[in-house]
Amino acid sequence: MTTIPTATRQIVLASRPHGAPTAENFRIETVELPAPAAGQVLVRNTVMSVDPYMRGRMNDTKSYVAPFQIDAPLDGGAVGAVVASRSDAVPVGAHVLHGLGWREHAVLPAENVTVIDTDAAPASAYLGVLGMTGLTAYVGLTAVAELRAGETVFVSGAAGAVGQVVGQVAKALGAGRVVGSAGSAAKVERLRELGYDGAFNYRETSVRKGLSELVPDGIDVYFDNVGGDHLEAAIGHLNRFGRVAMCGAVSQYNKTEPTPGPRNLALAIGKGLTLRGFLVGHFPDLAEEYRTRATAWLADGRLQGDETFREGLDGAPQAFIDLLEGANTGKMLVRL
Amino acid sequence: MTTIPTATRQIVLASRPHGAPTAENFRIETVELPAPAAGQVLVRNTVMSVDPYMRGRMNDTKSYVAPFQIDAPLDGGAVGAVVASRSDAVPVGAHVLHGLGWREHAVLPAENVTVIDTDAAPASAYLGVLGMTGLTAYVGLTAVAELRAGETVFVSGAAGAVGQVVGQVAKALGAGRVVGSAGSAAKVERLRELGYDGAFNYRETSVRKGLSELVPDGIDVYFDNVGGDHLEAAIGHLNRFGRVAMCGAVSQYNKTEPTPGPRNLALAIGKGLTLRGFLVGHFPDLAEEYRTRATAWLADGRLQGDETFREGLDGAPQAFIDLLEGANTGKMLVRL
Repeated sequence: MTTIPTATRQIVLASRPHGAPTAENFRIETVELPAPAAGQVLVRNTVMSVDPYMRGRMNDTKSYVAPFQIDAPLDGGAVGAVVASRSDAVPVGAHVLHGLGWREHAVLPAENVTVIDTDAAPASAYLGVLGMTGLTAYVGLTAVAELRAGETVFVSGAAGAVGQVVGQVAKALGAGRVVGSAGSAAKVERLRELGYDGAFNYRETSVRKGLSELVPDGIDVYFDNVGGDHLEAAIGHLNRFGRVAMCGAVSQYNKTEPTPGPRNLALAIGKGLTLRGFLVGHFPDLAEEYRTRATAWLADGRLQGDETFREGLDGAPQAFIDLLEGANTGKMLVRL
Repeated sequence: MTTIPTATRQIVLASRPHGAPTAENFRIETVELPAPAAGQVLVRNTVMSVDPYMRGRMNDTKSYVAPFQIDAPLDGGAVGAVVASRSDAVPVGAHVLHGLGWREHAVLPAENVTVIDTDAAPASAYLGVLGMTGLTAYVGLTAVAELRAGETVFVSGAAGAVGQVVGQVAKALGAGRVVGSAGSAAKVERLRELGYDGAFNYRETSVRKGLSELVPDGIDVYFDNVGGDHLEAAIGHLNRFGRVAMCGAVSQYNKTEPTPGPRNLALAIGKGLTLRGFLVGHFPDLAEEYRTRATAWLADGRLQGDETFREGLDGAPQAFIDLLEGANTGKMLVRL
């Protein structure tokens, strides 16, 4: 017989980072856990996600999601097992996906969790390749960049959680040549294994040079996870009527001053370029379509996603700090 | 009986401007004019156009149109009367639109001229409000920015040839509030007469402040003729899913160093913004549609275009120099 926990450990924001976050910005505390009320479930989290967008929420600035509050628990994607339930829809023992990560246990309304099929894929996949991460890649390529068969695609941060999926999904959707940038020789090698036609280490080669060598005839779609000099080089290298899916700007997240945009943005006029920013949440209608297609691609081997695991709630802050430095290959996760 | 001219005066590029062009960059010369060959016409130009895009062609850089060559004649839009013809399609006396401006007479194939109806509108209108200028405004609002009824529109360089048309066409297409920026109090006043709901003088008010006062609830479409701080302020002020039609960057054309792009470009991600560059030539299919609609709008008074005239071929270089400084209201033209 399982004992129902009455307390949980959780991580709160102790102070706002200035520049790169440090361990001092986080604090672990133990709080009481209420018994589930009618319609609620109690979940034991098994895996939680750390994601670059969380850095923005640590600043006290108006953005697309409300900032985290000082001394309040952080949140984010997590999967776990239901250990107590007062909902007929979600029984004890069910595996669920929800938004209350950064803690070992969570009590929340049953309608805020999604039951997942851990026979079809491991639970962690629902945080990564089958989850928001994978959907971000899919939405960016289809609805945002309007990728067409045969086109050349460039992906920055290609060894990251989103980037890995972008290249593989682009190939599955019929792209021609797909190339990426990453921050180490090992990551570059891994991208080739995953089906990228070419990749370069941006710490050793300028983006401009990398593109000139790998795709001398230009690119049609640039999937931007990085911003900064990557975006500027891509604008220079895009073909007429090329598109940029602006997904993230991880090179900027720890900056304390606003950084100049691409100096060559006016090239967009003559070349008829489109730069479009997006959040995965802007396209809720594509979630079901993606889940179906991605499950098939996972099954036939066309899609795989690496996972970098850190252990224990105590390891979560460092996992997040390292994520922003690019220490992960594929999805960065914390096993609880 | 008309004498057929056998020589013409024309303006050649004497040297490439570094920064703002000066009179020394231009030279007038007289050259022989061949008699029209079979299929050709000889046109006496009556009005020629000077346009901001010509500044880019004076640099020796790869761009969307080939650069002007040193000691070769400049070219650009012009209207005139046919004084000799060896084409059945284009008789003597016809009024035509063509691409060999910056000269008093031109000999060219009849298929390179378009016969215009000077009863429907004065010949000069075919260089401005009914011509490439007006079509640029229309294309930018419809195909590029995908303006929807009721939306709020901001136009920079609103008193310029394109900008004047943008505001009026936006209104004709059902836009809600339409506001613009211009470089003098007189221009601001003129914009109100033309149906702009509000305008500000960017030389006296920051763009950010101007927008906050005139459209506190944000903008949905930004028609960018200017670039620079206008673009940055507009990105900050755009609503979710807003669009930027990037038409020109006249604030940059005389710059000798690359200028940084907007520091807030990453806001496009969370807001789901689209920035799309375009040239009128990217949308040839819309020319006929525009000509029809614009002729009707001209007739019912919903559309009017100011013209700033300079006199004589000798005045053309200064007309162009002054255009880049914003000396014109509406279309800058040279009467020959």
